[in-house]
Amino acid sequence: MNKIKVACCQVAPVFGDVDGNLARAERALESAAALGAQVAVLPELANTGYVFASREEAQGLAEAVDGRSVSAWAALARRLGMVVAAGFCEAGAGGGVYNSAVLLGPDGEQACYRKAHLWDAEKLIFDLGDQPPPVLDTRFGRLALMICYDLEIPEWVRLPALAGAELLCAPVNWPVLPHPPGERQAERFKAQANAAFNRLPIAVCDRHGRERGVDWSGASLIVDANGYPQALAETGLKSDQLLLAELDLAASRDKFISQRNHVLDDRRPGLYRAPQDEDRRAVSAGAIGAG
Amino acid sequence: MNKIKVACCQVAPVFGDVDGNLARAERALESAAALGAQVAVLPELANTGYVFASREEAQGLAEAVDGRSVSAWAALARRLGMVVAAGFCEAGAGGGVYNSAVLLGPDGEQACYRKAHLWDAEKLIFDLGDQPPPVLDTRFGRLALMICYDLEIPEWVRLPALAGAELLCAPVNWPVLPHPPGERQAERFKAQANAAFNRLPIAVCDRHGRERGVDWSGASLIVDANGYPQALAETGLKSDQLLLAELDLAASRDKFISQRNHVLDDRRPGLYRAPQDEDRRAVSAGAIGAG
Repeated sequence: MNKIKVACCQVAPVFGDVDGNLARAERALESAAALGAQVAVLPELANTGYVFASREEAQGLAEAVDGRSVSAWAALARRLGMVVAAGFCEAGAGGGVYNSAVLLGPDGEQACYRKAHLWDAEKLIFDLGDQPPPVLDTRFGRLALMICYDLEIPEWVRLPALAGAELLCAPVNWPVLPHPPGERQAERFKAQANAAFNRLPIAVCDRHGRERGVDWSGASLIVDANGYPQALAETGLKSDQLLLAELDLAASRDKFISQRNHVLDDRRPGLYRAPQDEDRRAVSAGAIGAG
Repeated sequence: MNKIKVACCQVAPVFGDVDGNLARAERALESAAALGAQVAVLPELANTGYVFASREEAQGLAEAVDGRSVSAWAALARRLGMVVAAGFCEAGAGGGVYNSAVLLGPDGEQACYRKAHLWDAEKLIFDLGDQPPPVLDTRFGRLALMICYDLEIPEWVRLPALAGAELLCAPVNWPVLPHPPGERQAERFKAQANAAFNRLPIAVCDRHGRERGVDWSGASLIVDANGYPQALAETGLKSDQLLLAELDLAASRDKFISQRNHVLDDRRPGLYRAPQDEDRRAVSAGAIGAG
């Protein structure tokens, strides 16, 4: 057994209020630490809010990875002796602006990730990341990081599992979308399935509240290596929620789901190349040639 | 709108009783047709039962793809004017024995598939298929086929989606495995997620009953392009169940989940190659060299 306590700090960032958002995040992280959390996840774009009107507005709020938001969270990770995962709006050195997140360890270890699958209007605002999800060794385990819609691409979740990650931290902002009454919303069962496909627990931290006309789900969950939730936010509430779950990382390292089935070794990657992907590339090249 | 009626015929094959199993399948298919089903799915290994004691026992019950079981189902597909999907124990021309399934259309069209991801003791009994899931054009739509544990490999479900499939038929035999009370079992939410990842509806036909000490889940479901069940078997019953759902195949062809997100075009396959897979191949080659 190798148990750790994991928290999701489901807060409601206020658009553009970086000071207030950092203060709210600090209080939530302190509460998580007081309850014994060793890893705590904040939502996507936790320092700025989400609903940017334009790329220029995002550039105006973007910070370098050594800027004040990440520096504040890194100091909290050290002071509270915990790993912090949080989303922020990143200003790249070359003028790019990214929907990014950081993993910050209690011993100063650090990884930054730029979202590689952008959702809807994000495509008009952010540049695409092109690096795989980072995997960071910390005193509490080998942790990975991705952001929101990335979690809906099963090929993407495979990568940290293959790299030996024992827990995936996922800051998200899930808008309220229609789903049948009594059914768990699709983003949730997609996270459950990806955890189970890989025996990789996932801590998903959503936000709640309303921002510039968008209502957020507040549907955070912590899923174990079998794909079952160990903690589920109650949706529809108007207050912050702190989810806490104990996860056994030894279970993450055991990839067998029957005597003879290992979820990673059972894959047959040589068979997974789609001829349609080759066709698409050819068509795309043709279109460029003709243009 | 392009609506079709899909049925899952959740029966309980009896081990080795091919005559009885074909008779039970015929009655179930006739019931489905009487209720207007245009596509009907039977379980995995529907002609023989599942719990083979050895490869030799499977070889003794295996049939060629033009043998009596598939011929009987093909005749029913013609007579009832429906597509039939069913699993059977296949004798390959070269002496191989496969956990296979067929898609049989009302106009004589036909596809056969050999399971490419084997579950547990199947690895001792069956040969591995090495062809992708077939996609078959029928008068009711473009249908694909895979079997049971294949459904738990998201890379595998991508392939028929990329090939334009509008409905995936999946004969399965899901053994009863422990899962938390109140939670839908993992096989079910994995199917839901794979449907939603690809906007590809999935008709999963499980079996019920007990066979040589194995209890089966009886957890058939028909999932729509959004990943939500349109029909769910009640588990734990001791009788056959006929699930029926109407699916709109126009929804399968619309791959957008937001104004700017297309579930297939959003993939970035060039980023999905895992260096660990290259390492594994190198290690494997090394081990062979040393052996």
